[in-house]
Amino acid sequence: MDLESMGRAARQAAGRMALAGSGRKQHALHALADRLVARAPAILEENSRDLLAGRESGLNEALIDRLMLDPERLSAIAGDVRSVADLADPVGECIDERSMPNGLRVRRVRVPVGVLGVIYESRPNVTVDVSALAIKTGNAVILRGGKETVRSNRALMKAVAEALDESGLPVAAVQSLDDPDRRHVAGLLRLHRYVDMIIPRGGNALHEFCRENSTIPVITGGMGICHLYVDSEADLEAALHVVHNAKVQRPSVCNALDTLLVHRAVADRFLPRVVARLGRSGVAFRAEPRAVAALGSEPAAAEVKPAGPRDFDTEWLSLVLGLKVVDGLDEAIDHIAAHGTAHSDGILTQDEEAAASFVRSVDSAVVYVNASTRFTDGAQLGLGAEVAVSTQRLHARGPMGPADLTTYKWVVHGRYTIRS
Amino acid sequence: MDLESMGRAARQAAGRMALAGSGRKQHALHALADRLVARAPAILEENSRDLLAGRESGLNEALIDRLMLDPERLSAIAGDVRSVADLADPVGECIDERSMPNGLRVRRVRVPVGVLGVIYESRPNVTVDVSALAIKTGNAVILRGGKETVRSNRALMKAVAEALDESGLPVAAVQSLDDPDRRHVAGLLRLHRYVDMIIPRGGNALHEFCRENSTIPVITGGMGICHLYVDSEADLEAALHVVHNAKVQRPSVCNALDTLLVHRAVADRFLPRVVARLGRSGVAFRAEPRAVAALGSEPAAAEVKPAGPRDFDTEWLSLVLGLKVVDGLDEAIDHIAAHGTAHSDGILTQDEEAAASFVRSVDSAVVYVNASTRFTDGAQLGLGAEVAVSTQRLHARGPMGPADLTTYKWVVHGRYTIRS
Repeated sequence: MDLESMGRAARQAAGRMALAGSGRKQHALHALADRLVARAPAILEENSRDLLAGRESGLNEALIDRLMLDPERLSAIAGDVRSVADLADPVGECIDERSMPNGLRVRRVRVPVGVLGVIYESRPNVTVDVSALAIKTGNAVILRGGKETVRSNRALMKAVAEALDESGLPVAAVQSLDDPDRRHVAGLLRLHRYVDMIIPRGGNALHEFCRENSTIPVITGGMGICHLYVDSEADLEAALHVVHNAKVQRPSVCNALDTLLVHRAVADRFLPRVVARLGRSGVAFRAEPRAVAALGSEPAAAEVKPAGPRDFDTEWLSLVLGLKVVDGLDEAIDHIAAHGTAHSDGILTQDEEAAASFVRSVDSAVVYVNASTRFTDGAQLGLGAEVAVSTQRLHARGPMGPADLTTYKWVVHGRYTIRS
Repeated sequence: MDLESMGRAARQAAGRMALAGSGRKQHALHALADRLVARAPAILEENSRDLLAGRESGLNEALIDRLMLDPERLSAIAGDVRSVADLADPVGECIDERSMPNGLRVRRVRVPVGVLGVIYESRPNVTVDVSALAIKTGNAVILRGGKETVRSNRALMKAVAEALDESGLPVAAVQSLDDPDRRHVAGLLRLHRYVDMIIPRGGNALHEFCRENSTIPVITGGMGICHLYVDSEADLEAALHVVHNAKVQRPSVCNALDTLLVHRAVADRFLPRVVARLGRSGVAFRAEPRAVAALGSEPAAAEVKPAGPRDFDTEWLSLVLGLKVVDGLDEAIDHIAAHGTAHSDGILTQDEEAAASFVRSVDSAVVYVNASTRFTDGAQLGLGAEVAVSTQRLHARGPMGPADLTTYKWVVHGRYTIRS
């Protein structure tokens, strides 16, 4: 199927999806969850073919793990679809309402964005996640997954298509672009006649490519160089737990801690404990000179290397942590402005004034006071589900929930009212 | 000054603007209004040079009129700046707040978008409007006006710079890119390191150019092919006033009526009255065969031509109106979907069910029931001021007010809370 036809079919389907009631969409989602369970043997078999092909072509183990489905994972995916089914439907919600002096009643009402284009890597769970969120919010979607997962995706798409069909919704609401030719990605990015929003889900290179080549608005995200600043007024014992959590709980993700900034007044007391405690969890450190000095001459409990010139501009995505001593709040804020990616940054302190100043001055999607950066996630911040994390500033910023897949229309009622 | 330096200066200024209090920004706006009045002779002199050069280079009278300032217009512009000064400041507003079971307090707080790039034509009033809105919302802006207005803009920018400076705000918060080389426009559109949002204000070609060439999110707008559908259940007397208002009150703007759709049951009664009444105001008509038939054999009171194949896809921007008879609501909705630009479309009827169905099915930025399409305007719909009218679907749709020049940051307070 060519892109133009897919786009046209998606646009038509979007028109029908926008008018679908909440109950029908919910029915389709439960049907999808049922199908995933019922079709599990076929899905897992196709997935095992993808895994085999992936191993033969030399995919590394991290990618193989992302690609892999098993009965537990598939069952968890089906469970997530049921959770999405039971979320509130944002479509039709009245955002605001006012009456004008001339008698006009002015409302803004949420409607679906229309047609989404979602470009992602070899993660079959994303295929289902995104399909579920698109159905929930009355959108149509064109999916473009990684070529390594094409067999798994075809099997999953059968379940999606059946669920839509049996619920009286258009099958073209969810389409997958599975021809591996990479030119199709560039084509999708220029399909602005039909597609309203591009969501890349993957590494920084994918986001850059989309931004450079798309004529459709792109929700960029991806890279998070995350900071915690331990103030002189922090509860150091409690701070140690937070730093450990932010770095160690899941080091491979974008909201994991990359750089720890420590006030010089507490550096001598705090940094050796950080190295000892996180070192036991396998963390290695990149320390600037004052941080090295604060560690003293005792042999370190972990690998501590002097920080190189690019280390504070690196998203580690692994058990490595940058360490820096700062003179105070201002230097911490300046460091974050110079080296951060406006993703997730926090302060640990008992000083409310310092916290307020940090919150005001640090221009990140999520700013934390006395909490781990690991909470940057739609479910953790109360959105029910997560579409993506946006580090750009338009439309949606930070974790995006179902409502961020909607726009609004103005609905104006008059009494044959004219403008004078 | 090169673009890179302008971008860097704008980004720095944006950081300071974001922290500026409402009072300081309000002070700068009143100072700007004062300066416009005080500097009026110099501004008008520079404007007269632009006018002279424009006439010499053969600008048409419509463009000359847009370019022209006089004491009344300048005083009105200053008045608009004072109105913006006195609007509520959206920055700092808490959008929502929730507490999570683990004790996290999660808020979203409005912050400025950052750096705006505004590209517009030879309208010096836009220079001041946009400057005022940027200052109000704590943004920095790089302005790119038409080359015909470069002298006027320089004089206006002096007033802006002085107002910022005397209020303790960074002068680089408002910069104007006045080198006429058109390559700078393309350069500005790729300055995503520094610029967060592009707002084109002009015709369709400008919007297309920005969308095709920008690596920065663009708020597209521009073209409005607007419809009113007169239902069989309309109050025809009242409907006639609305149709007249929508077409005649200001025909040159995007929210003026382009096509009138009339239910066949009332076409014979209604269309002759439309032609008579609007004809008296100088309107000419393009009618499809059934509309021609409904007008009967009496000599028409105005120019009525058969509609050509592209007439229903034309934004007239002048005293021309397309006429079409439809079988009912469904055909009206289908016509609007096929020929509209999702800008402003309305139904005139006493039938609430038909109205509700129209509102649900017509996917336009502003959908009207029993009102003129001319209300698509920020001030008319209660936004206090208007930045632009967006016909795209992300970030803001329809009239954009000051709040649409903001984004938000998530602010999360914990008690040394960790993710488990």
